[in-house]
Amino acid sequence: MKKLINAVGDVVPDTLRGMAAAHPSLRVDVENRIVLRAAGPTPGKVGLVSGGGSGHEPLHAGFVGYGMLDAACPGEIFTSPVPDQMIEATKAVDGGAGVLHIVKNYTGDVLNFEMAAELCAEEGAHVVSVLVDDDVAVQDSTYTAGRRGTGATLFVEKMAGALAEQGAPLEAVAAMARTVDARSRSFGVAFSACTVPAAGKPTFDLGPDEIELGIGIHGEPGRSRERFREAREIVRVAMDAIDADLPFSGDVLVMVNGMGATPLMELYVAYGEVDAYLREKGATATRCLVGDYVTSLDMAGFSITTCLLDAELTSLWDHPVETPALRWGR
Amino acid sequence: MKKLINAVGDVVPDTLRGMAAAHPSLRVDVENRIVLRAAGPTPGKVGLVSGGGSGHEPLHAGFVGYGMLDAACPGEIFTSPVPDQMIEATKAVDGGAGVLHIVKNYTGDVLNFEMAAELCAEEGAHVVSVLVDDDVAVQDSTYTAGRRGTGATLFVEKMAGALAEQGAPLEAVAAMARTVDARSRSFGVAFSACTVPAAGKPTFDLGPDEIELGIGIHGEPGRSRERFREAREIVRVAMDAIDADLPFSGDVLVMVNGMGATPLMELYVAYGEVDAYLREKGATATRCLVGDYVTSLDMAGFSITTCLLDAELTSLWDHPVETPALRWGR
Repeated sequence: MKKLINAVGDVVPDTLRGMAAAHPSLRVDVENRIVLRAAGPTPGKVGLVSGGGSGHEPLHAGFVGYGMLDAACPGEIFTSPVPDQMIEATKAVDGGAGVLHIVKNYTGDVLNFEMAAELCAEEGAHVVSVLVDDDVAVQDSTYTAGRRGTGATLFVEKMAGALAEQGAPLEAVAAMARTVDARSRSFGVAFSACTVPAAGKPTFDLGPDEIELGIGIHGEPGRSRERFREAREIVRVAMDAIDADLPFSGDVLVMVNGMGATPLMELYVAYGEVDAYLREKGATATRCLVGDYVTSLDMAGFSITTCLLDAELTSLWDHPVETPALRWGR
Repeated sequence: MKKLINAVGDVVPDTLRGMAAAHPSLRVDVENRIVLRAAGPTPGKVGLVSGGGSGHEPLHAGFVGYGMLDAACPGEIFTSPVPDQMIEATKAVDGGAGVLHIVKNYTGDVLNFEMAAELCAEEGAHVVSVLVDDDVAVQDSTYTAGRRGTGATLFVEKMAGALAEQGAPLEAVAAMARTVDARSRSFGVAFSACTVPAAGKPTFDLGPDEIELGIGIHGEPGRSRERFREAREIVRVAMDAIDADLPFSGDVLVMVNGMGATPLMELYVAYGEVDAYLREKGATATRCLVGDYVTSLDMAGFSITTCLLDAELTSLWDHPVETPALRWGR
């Protein structure tokens, strides 16, 4: 295992130290593993907190900043953060208008965020949680009851974050988060496994000509293991799976996301196929992201996440954002 | 070889088709392989053209837009573009104030850009070329006489692009490009080789515990092949090599760049070590980029590029930029 790290046990704190040094817009509490906006809570604005296992960078800490999250709680690699982190983060970002917890649907995350929300409520905080569960590949999975939460998390953080920035109340921000999740779907494909530093070896084996269709972002099994084929056909499998679940129509936000080790050229090749597929269906990709946003360490492969837009969602997507990993309009 | 592509011969045009679909701010001429700003040339502004082999994305096409390049000419993977592309691009971006060619120091690129500049000059265009040669690892290399041009290309494109946007004349923009190159240095480290689609196998072999110190962005040999070690020590080798060539002092712009397959977490771990190293030397990392900017397909590894800043360079770095891969201030 060749990892650019110092010691297996130090990966998360060393990452956070690097983020703190790189981004003066963030306040990074390395000891308690909380990443906040350096400017502190915005009075009267709903605070947005998310978090989850590390290894998916830039998710979530890379999305802390104006127009998205107020705080992120990184756990160990592929391991839920603990309630204490979430409670500290919730307190730190509460500007008096309540706090939204954005929770990817993994059992550990769900239980810990639930506990944190209850303890915060007991202390008088106003906390609402929304669950992200966009992955159409499988109904239940290794760490999940129901659908897994993957790429749509970024969409929820962006659009709910924009609405919060505009001064909307907690109930409206939470409703928007649920709307975005309800309109979003994802499907991932692995070309290789990833290697968790503490394990020191790949999380599963794929043959030289095999791919895993419907992979999870921790390497959880998907729908089937099949022979490798050309980009056009792989994209079609993913898009067909999404379309069968929520048919494409109108304006669509698309993310073609690299899992970590797939070159940007290849993601653009895939995006071209996604764009053509949507045209065939009479829909239009009006907004997109192409790059590594919700990763799985050094896994080779990609995922597609789509969201059916309307004028309001488009406007929230276009709202200015200023975070380490997503920035426009300021 | 598992590549998310349709056919080996279609990788570059398919990538360009994907870029065209993803970025309405670009005008992509897929047939002639030129990427331009959709808005066309800015009257009275110096035009900036760069280009080089594909496989380093987002360099160069991802840096076409306000505040950086006016055009990029992508060649085949790891192969120089041809003079016809450069001539067409030069004509297309000439807003009456002349055109700057930004050329990475590889023999093919240098010869083809020279021929293009001569032919443009014969037709009456005012073209100046600047060579980027920032890689301290080796003096000559597989495809290069003198030092290789790598990460500093981004810095040159950004800062010369900002000055051009502010209305400076061609001679001043070219002088700034040379200043940025003169103040910049790079050093790369490979953990694995990359696989060029047309070759179908890795460009070289590295043992399970080996790394290549001083790697080039096409997999050209570096200074030495050594045993793998912790991030702190690997970063120190790279920073010592840069510091020995151009001692660190004052404000420093730092890019910790992933070669393609190295997780963002690890790049942040490395950035933390770079930051600490500079403090030891009495210098300060005042601006930085951490991510995949000048890649080498699916190579695992990273490079460090530094630039000694002054107030003017810092101001040019901070100037608004709006490209697919680098954006702030608008």
